[in-house]
Amino acid sequence: MLDYAALAALAEIIRRGSFEAAAAALGVTPSAISQRIKGLEERMGEVLIHRGPPARGTAMGLRLMQHLDQVRVLEQALGTDPGAAPATLRLAVNADSLATWFPRVMTALDVIYDLVVDDQDHARDWLRKGEVSAAISSDPEPVPGCDAYALGHMRYHALATPAFIARHFPDGVTEAALRRAPSVIFNMKDAAQSRWAESLTGTKLHLSGHQVPASEAFARVVELGLGWGMIPDSMAAPALAANRLAHLAPDLPLDIALYWHVQRAIRPALASLTGAIRKRAAEDLRP
Amino acid sequence: MLDYAALAALAEIIRRGSFEAAAAALGVTPSAISQRIKGLEERMGEVLIHRGPPARGTAMGLRLMQHLDQVRVLEQALGTDPGAAPATLRLAVNADSLATWFPRVMTALDVIYDLVVDDQDHARDWLRKGEVSAAISSDPEPVPGCDAYALGHMRYHALATPAFIARHFPDGVTEAALRRAPSVIFNMKDAAQSRWAESLTGTKLHLSGHQVPASEAFARVVELGLGWGMIPDSMAAPALAANRLAHLAPDLPLDIALYWHVQRAIRPALASLTGAIRKRAAEDLRP
Repeated sequence: MLDYAALAALAEIIRRGSFEAAAAALGVTPSAISQRIKGLEERMGEVLIHRGPPARGTAMGLRLMQHLDQVRVLEQALGTDPGAAPATLRLAVNADSLATWFPRVMTALDVIYDLVVDDQDHARDWLRKGEVSAAISSDPEPVPGCDAYALGHMRYHALATPAFIARHFPDGVTEAALRRAPSVIFNMKDAAQSRWAESLTGTKLHLSGHQVPASEAFARVVELGLGWGMIPDSMAAPALAANRLAHLAPDLPLDIALYWHVQRAIRPALASLTGAIRKRAAEDLRP
Repeated sequence: MLDYAALAALAEIIRRGSFEAAAAALGVTPSAISQRIKGLEERMGEVLIHRGPPARGTAMGLRLMQHLDQVRVLEQALGTDPGAAPATLRLAVNADSLATWFPRVMTALDVIYDLVVDDQDHARDWLRKGEVSAAISSDPEPVPGCDAYALGHMRYHALATPAFIARHFPDGVTEAALRRAPSVIFNMKDAAQSRWAESLTGTKLHLSGHQVPASEAFARVVELGLGWGMIPDSMAAPALAANRLAHLAPDLPLDIALYWHVQRAIRPALASLTGAIRKRAAEDLRP
């Protein structure tokens, strides 16, 4: 068996960023913490923490922290230790799900959530690296050791202010106009705008755009007329109804499929969360 | 002089994550791009791009990209080339400013914004590393070569649902109850909850909490009763008025000072943005 007291020390150091803060949180001395980590690193035969500051987990350190979290979630599901602190569950969630339907499902399971936010095309990478227990991702392919549940589709519309459309697309949404008009993208990994432009024009375009890596701010920047961008329909509805936003091409939405990926070993302990996610997705997403 | 065509190639590669995408965006061949980067790396005597995939800038690569962006902003301010594409301005903004007052100032300057979002305590690090032209930060100390403008204070309140307060703080917000009750934090770097708890109890507490690294989702998770957290007053007002949220201690807000840090070399070109930021801060922040 692994030394779980040492794993607990490892997880506290990675979460708090220092040996001192971890020691204080666990109520032991910094030298006791150092001893535990040293023993664990000797046993594993590799470095688990970049000492920093701030202290950060190595790839193996992060995997071990994730393993400890899963053991705690499984322990909690056993229900034999009602006085124990709630387990931590590390999940990767795409930013637009977190900005819309996801928070309401979080009440389904009594854990401490540690959310990692990434683009829907990349949330699955976190699972593959073994750094999260589950993920919302647009990739249907299960990671080895994981199960994937189809949740439905999030619908995006290409939107801008009426003034922006009049100024940048006077002759319609042509390839030439799309090349010139500023778009808004979440970050460089966000391909939604390019994918939509390609589906409209049939050509791979190289768009330039503002980078606004926060979902609500992204929508506000579009509403302020700084660029056009793909906004989930539930977020866009009020601004569309009030004519603050308009469609670049109303008949061409972009539907992005979402999947819930769960580590198989921990799946039974997450059953109530998986149930809540599937129920909410059935209500809030498109089939 | 530096080879600015090579710098342009470097910036496109870093922004688009591959030599191929950069070549397509610039309308040249991938081998031409490779030659430019090779020449630049020989001249600088160090690697500028980790080849990936995805291709990523080294520390020096990012500094050079930032330098190019600044030269373009200065060129644009000259106003001699009205047909040129707008310059890119890379800024570090704290998440809560981006979620509240910041987007409206972005219309003051006709550039493509590349926003980096970080905690207000750390936005200044991006400036220190030379990777952004300006930053909103809680640190008053100017970075060498930069000027800092005091903007005022963002006021935070410690809030939770009435049911959460009744369950976790039946005998008031005591030190023991704070140790047990789950909080919500933005990420491990977010010290606002700990700082507030310390100002209330006089003791350094080691809080455990959900990590929700998105401002609006953070507020929604608090409103769903998953934990207590520090929320900016402008974001909390509707939920407070509707009694969906209540104060843990109404007379103990946490005021966080914000500063606008600007690279001195580029300051004149950003005058209109600086003016808009100071004006909006005077209206939306506390003195």
